[in-house]
Amino acid sequence: MHWRDIKRFLVGKPLETQQLESERLSKVTGLAVLSSDALSSSAYATEQMLLVLMLAGPLGTAYGLKVGAFILLLLAMVVVSYRQTVHAYPGGGGAYFVAKENLGTSFGLIAAAALLVDYVLTVTVSVAAGVDAITSALPATAPHRVGMGIVAIFVVALGNLRGVRESGVLFSIPTYFFVTMFALMLIVNVVHPFGYWAPAAAAAPGQPLRESLTLWLLLKAFASGCAALTGVEAVSNGVQAFRPPESKNAATVMVWMGLILGTFFAGSTYLAYRYNVLPVGDQTVISQLGHSAFGDSPFYYLLQISTTLILILAANTSFADFPRLASILGRDAYMPRQLANRGDRLVFSNGIIVLAAVAGLLLWLFAGHTSALIHLYAVGVFVSFTLSQAGMVRRFISRRERGWASRAAVSAAGATATGIVVIIELTTKFTEGAWISALLMALLVLAFYEINHHYTFYARQISSKEWQPVWPRKHVVVVPVAGVSKSTASALAYALLLSQNIRAVAVATNPEQVAKLQDDWDMWDSGVPLEVVISPYRSIVRPLLDYIDRVENEEKPDWLTVVLPEVVPARWWHNIFHNQTALAIKAALLFRPNVVVTSVPYHLER
Amino acid sequence: MHWRDIKRFLVGKPLETQQLESERLSKVTGLAVLSSDALSSSAYATEQMLLVLMLAGPLGTAYGLKVGAFILLLLAMVVVSYRQTVHAYPGGGGAYFVAKENLGTSFGLIAAAALLVDYVLTVTVSVAAGVDAITSALPATAPHRVGMGIVAIFVVALGNLRGVRESGVLFSIPTYFFVTMFALMLIVNVVHPFGYWAPAAAAAPGQPLRESLTLWLLLKAFASGCAALTGVEAVSNGVQAFRPPESKNAATVMVWMGLILGTFFAGSTYLAYRYNVLPVGDQTVISQLGHSAFGDSPFYYLLQISTTLILILAANTSFADFPRLASILGRDAYMPRQLANRGDRLVFSNGIIVLAAVAGLLLWLFAGHTSALIHLYAVGVFVSFTLSQAGMVRRFISRRERGWASRAAVSAAGATATGIVVIIELTTKFTEGAWISALLMALLVLAFYEINHHYTFYARQISSKEWQPVWPRKHVVVVPVAGVSKSTASALAYALLLSQNIRAVAVATNPEQVAKLQDDWDMWDSGVPLEVVISPYRSIVRPLLDYIDRVENEEKPDWLTVVLPEVVPARWWHNIFHNQTALAIKAALLFRPNVVVTSVPYHLER
Repeated sequence: MHWRDIKRFLVGKPLETQQLESERLSKVTGLAVLSSDALSSSAYATEQMLLVLMLAGPLGTAYGLKVGAFILLLLAMVVVSYRQTVHAYPGGGGAYFVAKENLGTSFGLIAAAALLVDYVLTVTVSVAAGVDAITSALPATAPHRVGMGIVAIFVVALGNLRGVRESGVLFSIPTYFFVTMFALMLIVNVVHPFGYWAPAAAAAPGQPLRESLTLWLLLKAFASGCAALTGVEAVSNGVQAFRPPESKNAATVMVWMGLILGTFFAGSTYLAYRYNVLPVGDQTVISQLGHSAFGDSPFYYLLQISTTLILILAANTSFADFPRLASILGRDAYMPRQLANRGDRLVFSNGIIVLAAVAGLLLWLFAGHTSALIHLYAVGVFVSFTLSQAGMVRRFISRRERGWASRAAVSAAGATATGIVVIIELTTKFTEGAWISALLMALLVLAFYEINHHYTFYARQISSKEWQPVWPRKHVVVVPVAGVSKSTASALAYALLLSQNIRAVAVATNPEQVAKLQDDWDMWDSGVPLEVVISPYRSIVRPLLDYIDRVENEEKPDWLTVVLPEVVPARWWHNIFHNQTALAIKAALLFRPNVVVTSVPYHLER
Repeated sequence: MHWRDIKRFLVGKPLETQQLESERLSKVTGLAVLSSDALSSSAYATEQMLLVLMLAGPLGTAYGLKVGAFILLLLAMVVVSYRQTVHAYPGGGGAYFVAKENLGTSFGLIAAAALLVDYVLTVTVSVAAGVDAITSALPATAPHRVGMGIVAIFVVALGNLRGVRESGVLFSIPTYFFVTMFALMLIVNVVHPFGYWAPAAAAAPGQPLRESLTLWLLLKAFASGCAALTGVEAVSNGVQAFRPPESKNAATVMVWMGLILGTFFAGSTYLAYRYNVLPVGDQTVISQLGHSAFGDSPFYYLLQISTTLILILAANTSFADFPRLASILGRDAYMPRQLANRGDRLVFSNGIIVLAAVAGLLLWLFAGHTSALIHLYAVGVFVSFTLSQAGMVRRFISRRERGWASRAAVSAAGATATGIVVIIELTTKFTEGAWISALLMALLVLAFYEINHHYTFYARQISSKEWQPVWPRKHVVVVPVAGVSKSTASALAYALLLSQNIRAVAVATNPEQVAKLQDDWDMWDSGVPLEVVISPYRSIVRPLLDYIDRVENEEKPDWLTVVLPEVVPARWWHNIFHNQTALAIKAALLFRPNVVVTSVPYHLER
């Protein structure tokens, strides 16, 4: 068929289940595969923090270093705390698992909802920021912001539907390319300060302040900058992917990642402060720093390309994480079961499609503006941080293994810090978008419970344990006759195979039709008499339903089958010319117990 | 059911076919019923003509009287010519009939397409102009232009779905109310010229001209003013509705209508010229003439109300004409047959719904602006005028009855004049919207042929004339088993009623399931063995199709039935949790000959 060919071309041929195995990662490749999401935050975290501070003018941006220092401290706490999770859960310690196991199902589901929302936003924000890197280098492309973003999401989704292997090489190249270019940019700027410095748009001194410098504004800047921490948890989810000793390697990679991310964030924040770089005009902060280091040389463009690539890689990470979590929730009957089915290519195709659709919708709704989307972001991730670490505290306390007290203290400190961030995120950015994330999480949790309830009830209802079926005996078949034609004959022929007890019935809207109809019918000599019902209201469906009621009352069958001819036209849109009455009959009988409506296809040649 | 209750409330209870009869009209009521569309044109025709002329400034508007005179001449020609049609076709002489009978099917279909397009535009233009009358009186309502129009279309459509009888009283009141108010306005303005004259917005003398006064501009103004003639054909369609002598009464009413319409158009054009009234600002020409006659007194508001009412009545006329023509085309197999079915309330419900949807869409697309819509209008009506009169010429010539030559000459003159108008409409307004009408007509004619071709072919294909059915003998039933549960049991139970030859098959994605499945199955003791197929690709559908192929090859049945359990959840949206695989199986088997897929409903309680 046509559609299948297209699918095969785009997605590739099916794979066998046995092909499902994964290569084990070394520390170097593990860093590449699992930290692209975290490292990519360096591309926008400083900028988002400054965007808030600059509302208070130079007085505000002067606080950049101090706010940045708090974010660095938070990063260090989370990294140290998550190393403990890595050691405690060598099988992979996602927030859903950790919270469910230690705090109970409800908290597990809240963590799961937070993560799902966060994965969607990782895609949207990363793609939007990746597009920013392109439009900074090539301002002429700015009007196509949303289009470019949608294409990027589509391509990444397609790659994942084909089943992108998380192969070391594929991920290592862009990750280390980005790390190299970003490090080079920082070094050149430090060694040759103001080398090519030509500010894209310096803040005009007399520019009116839009907000005064308050604690509220600083907290809001802090909340925006906390986007730097998104993705830090990825290593703890992927412990199993490392070569043995898994936990030890993962913990080491966690520290490497923390150090690189911390350096990049600190470095770009310091340089932005020193150069008084502001995210004004059509240039991102990183693009401006790139210009000041490399001028307009190819190195600048390599930096921008590497930034775009790592951001798309970060989006790609969510395309592995979201479907995986959704499939676990599907298996646990908290989401529709289709999400738990691996498609032909061994990937969770439905989850990939849902993620791409929702992320694309958000990108379109927010016109691809990173600074608008950022207000929705990070709430989810910090909720999951908090619940995961709180779960760890509970675990340490209940197990009381050696050194439990200090470990519990570390996790408790982390949980407290990230919990405070959740409150800051929600209060300072609630009206600007955080409410959307909170609402989505709440709705998801409600949906989880509703779905679980439905599946539980359904399983109980269809379970045949300690139950023996009673096989029915009596069957009546009703054949509605619209006219004497080949399609009617095919329905009658089929009905003759089903039962000895067949009732053929025609609804006549005009009494004059009856005699001719009977004559034509009798010519067939089928042995089935034709009953004719007159309908004064021209309705076909109502008199037919009344007739079926009568048959049911007279015969009291175990099952009653209505056999309808269904014209299958050669072109799909020809359906508008056929089967309207059949559809109405089906709809009317859908909720009748022990009634089956069967369509006997009659294929038109063209 | 819920939906049926809402429908009953809105539309009313069903009516019997015998209730289909119509009252016969006197000349006075006949005028009211059949000329609201024509008379209502006086509300906007002068204005649309002036809107073009004023592009050339005062020099242009000075030509108003001359252009108007040509339009009056054309009106007289069409009225005289159509009186002949009324006499020749006492059964009703719609353009489709006349053209089809005398010029052949192709021209009949072109006329039909022209009329359908015209009926849609009558609704849109009349409603838009009716809304103009309201916004002229109450400028604050102007921003709600489109909303008010959509509501008006919805209300008129609903009234027609209920089955508004074309009762004399219902139509006489607004029609004669409008005739009275409009006549009063003309008289007062003539008797007391400049009584309350305060021009809404006189053209500033120094205003730059946007176009120079060319023949092209005059032709364009003429084309716009020709909207005055729309609806004139209504009487000729409705001859049968008159009391005997039908043709004579209809011919008289035709003249009355022509005289009133001519007087109104001439009067308002003359007054606009004399007062130098221009359609500027938020006041229609008629509203300004109303102000000059009545000032701000209640009479002014009565004039505006009566204008709105007659325009809505004009739209209402199309709600009778469009579904009637569509039903004739449906009966003749040029449009989908559903259009030929009378609904519960004896009206052609589908045609009404289609008309309301298309007219509403156009209104929305053109933001309710009468002057934009007018460019699409009138093309259709003049095409049908031309074809109808050309048909009459052919008829007179071929019959050669007494006086045929002079009659043919009258019709030929009319056909020529209206044919020239078609060319003027198409050339002067092609790029401004006439192309849309022309394109729609062309597409409709193509669709008529395509649909007719399909139905003809279909009828031939299912015809059982000189054909004797062969009753089949061999039947195999395949029951796909997803698991041992009550829903599976209900499918199996049903299958046991259908045939002795049942093949139950389970697709296992995991070899470990097989033994348990077999044990559970055997507990039921149904006498049907369970075959298990292993699917290494996790796909359920593909192995099942392969199995069905195998069964067909082995057994070579006349018919093969696949019996699937179908979970019917208590809430419709729960469907997302169920029956996904069943849907895929049905889709895959849709085009297989001699295969029936039957769903056995299993009703969930909640």
